[in-house]
Amino acid sequence: GFATAVQSNKVTIGLIPADGIGREVIPAARQVLESLPKSESSPRFDFIHLDAGFEHFQKHGVALPDETLARLRGECQGALFGAVSSPSHRVAGYSSPIVALRKHLDLYANVRPVTSVAGDGQKQLDMLIIRENTECLYIKQERIETDANGLKVAYADRKISEYASRRAGQMAFNMALMRDKLRANTPASQRLWQGKPKVTIVHKSNVLSVTDGLWRETVRSVKENNPAFAGVDMDEQLVDSMVYRMFREPEAFDVVVAPNLYGDIISDGAAALVGSLGLVPSANVGDNFVVGEPVHGSAPDIAGQQKANPIAAIRSAGLLLEHMGYSADAARIYQAVDSVLREGQIKTPDIGGKSTTQEVTDAVCKPGTP
Amino acid sequence: GFATAVQSNKVTIGLIPADGIGREVIPAARQVLESLPKSESSPRFDFIHLDAGFEHFQKHGVALPDETLARLRGECQGALFGAVSSPSHRVAGYSSPIVALRKHLDLYANVRPVTSVAGDGQKQLDMLIIRENTECLYIKQERIETDANGLKVAYADRKISEYASRRAGQMAFNMALMRDKLRANTPASQRLWQGKPKVTIVHKSNVLSVTDGLWRETVRSVKENNPAFAGVDMDEQLVDSMVYRMFREPEAFDVVVAPNLYGDIISDGAAALVGSLGLVPSANVGDNFVVGEPVHGSAPDIAGQQKANPIAAIRSAGLLLEHMGYSADAARIYQAVDSVLREGQIKTPDIGGKSTTQEVTDAVCKPGTP
Ligand SMILES: CC(C)[C@H](C(=O)O)[C@@H](O)C(=O)O
Ligand SMILES: CC(C)[C@H](C(=O)O)[C@@H](O)C(=O)O
Repeated sequence: GFATAVQSNKVTIGLIPADGIGREVIPAARQVLESLPKSESSPRFDFIHLDAGFEHFQKHGVALPDETLARLRGECQGALFGAVSSPSHRVAGYSSPIVALRKHLDLYANVRPVTSVAGDGQKQLDMLIIRENTECLYIKQERIETDANGLKVAYADRKISEYASRRAGQMAFNMALMRDKLRANTPASQRLWQGKPKVTIVHKSNVLSVTDGLWRETVRSVKENNPAFAGVDMDEQLVDSMVYRMFREPEAFDVVVAPNLYGDIISDGAAALVGSLGLVPSANVGDNFVVGEPVHGSAPDIAGQQKANPIAAIRSAGLLLEHMGYSADAARIYQAVDSVLREGQIKTPDIGGKSTTQEVTDAVCKPGTP
Repeated sequence: GFATAVQSNKVTIGLIPADGIGREVIPAARQVLESLPKSESSPRFDFIHLDAGFEHFQKHGVALPDETLARLRGECQGALFGAVSSPSHRVAGYSSPIVALRKHLDLYANVRPVTSVAGDGQKQLDMLIIRENTECLYIKQERIETDANGLKVAYADRKISEYASRRAGQMAFNMALMRDKLRANTPASQRLWQGKPKVTIVHKSNVLSVTDGLWRETVRSVKENNPAFAGVDMDEQLVDSMVYRMFREPEAFDVVVAPNLYGDIISDGAAALVGSLGLVPSANVGDNFVVGEPVHGSAPDIAGQQKANPIAAIRSAGLLLEHMGYSADAARIYQAVDSVLREGQIKTPDIGGKSTTQEVTDAVCKPGTP
């Protein structure tokens, strides 16, 4: 089992910067967590540094050290993961540490809110993507053969289980209700989403009638079998149409639930709509553990230059708190970020500014801001 | 083998409207083909109507009748396919006729040009997507099992072969050279793409190191093994980044080559960038046969109302001619469409107009236009 807090509100967070700009944005997120005002009900943080990543693999032959996993399990209540570089050529023995982490810690839902700050001139959207996080093509069961002509033929298994689809579906409907409750506290004029809560199921069952058929039916049955979800609307989109409609009418989506790979693709598309991958956070959520993770990659081209946008990582720290039950502290982080974005003075180059990673982080931490 | 023209320039085209708006846009495309000025070198058309689709399945129990396949093979040099409805629930015995057609006729590359008309206010792009058209998850090898807890577990095979990857790659590099040659005839000021021809390989080999690793290496080797392609640049994008970058910098792409499902998703995304799926054509190309097919679906909500945009189907007729070797006639069609779009007076509701399918078709056919 996972470590539970011995002293009330004491929380140990594993910090796994991994590669590239992960090493700049994870310290930024830590600084924001440390700057939160201390109250009775707020968490008190301990941080431990943990190794992982492609560079670690190149030096030590392992991308996700056993020690990292053991200390996450034994000492931490949650973690923040930075970003991982992908080798451009196939490297024997290397396998993505974030995919492994999701699997080993059974982090079955990847929760990705994509929200524009009202009035920033971009398309307006307020979408929550729930990405199934443990199976689909990510089970990495692949094989290669040689055909009668001596040519190579490779296969990968795509797995869709009722078990995992149901968990992802439950997360989607629960989050739809939760968002609806939170919206009730927001003045109507500030709400982007005005209707009943809605879950959109993404699939491609016109081609994958068995696997995506199972996905679709299982997620639908989550609503159909639970009266608590009666007030949540449900619709569906084929994955290709989803990408199309998301760009044409992003305001048409509330919660979107998708199998692993579709969710990966859709969340990058949604990030383009809010202006930058550097703004979009995620949380890898299991029943016992949460790992916050910015949706962006390791961006080797700008690494080490203080150009990285820390907001995705800072918002991921907010999601980490939210899913650990500290919603009030999470809300402080979101509001601090939103107010920096709304003021629009201090921003990194990806969203048209000239500020450094540190300057943006300091602005978010400014006394009175979070 | 396929039927070859007995009389020079006599071309028999199979028309397969299938479902929904397919029945409006395929007649529109036919009208444009018939309106082409007759010259020595132009084709003379015969059209035959062929059945397929979900409605045909509901009436007769078969989505792609044997007769349709037999007549395509025996009598036609090419075909136009409309669109097919997808049942929202799984229907026993039903399988997509367009996927079957691609397979039976070995139409191994789906060629999808996505080009904005200069000055239409949309993002500017001039991209050609080459989608591998025969394998990936589209082989439809799926199975379902029950686990120890009585829950369902489904699997699909994703196939990537050296053979199919190479054919798709060759098509991509050939088309890159062809586009470069055509651009040389266009005044520089009218060219959206100014650089050397480029092929971008889309994959997800950071997760699918065996299947997408084979895809990536095979497509790369097409260039590396052929001096004719020395002048074509080559780069690559992970599929999630591809969707992100396509929306941020669509002008960064020339030819894009992708495995089947990624190609499906990317082309819908690209269609959103040019303003409507109703504008984007495709050709399913094999060594002996071509099937033109608009990228849009059957749009049951507007079917039968003269609201469908015929341009995707009309441009698909152009692609059909182009890939059958009648480039001059194809160019007439493209120019006629571009001039109607540039004038901007006669357009269907999807792109902000009030004109009917027939009015747009007539405008394209206006004497002097094509
Ligand atoms: C790095 C990569 C394996 C990962 C994924 O595909 O899940 C990333 O794109 C993400 O979205 O977290
Ligand atoms: C109808 C469907 C099977 C098809 C596909 O996925 O190939 C369509 O989306 C397309 O793009 O031609």
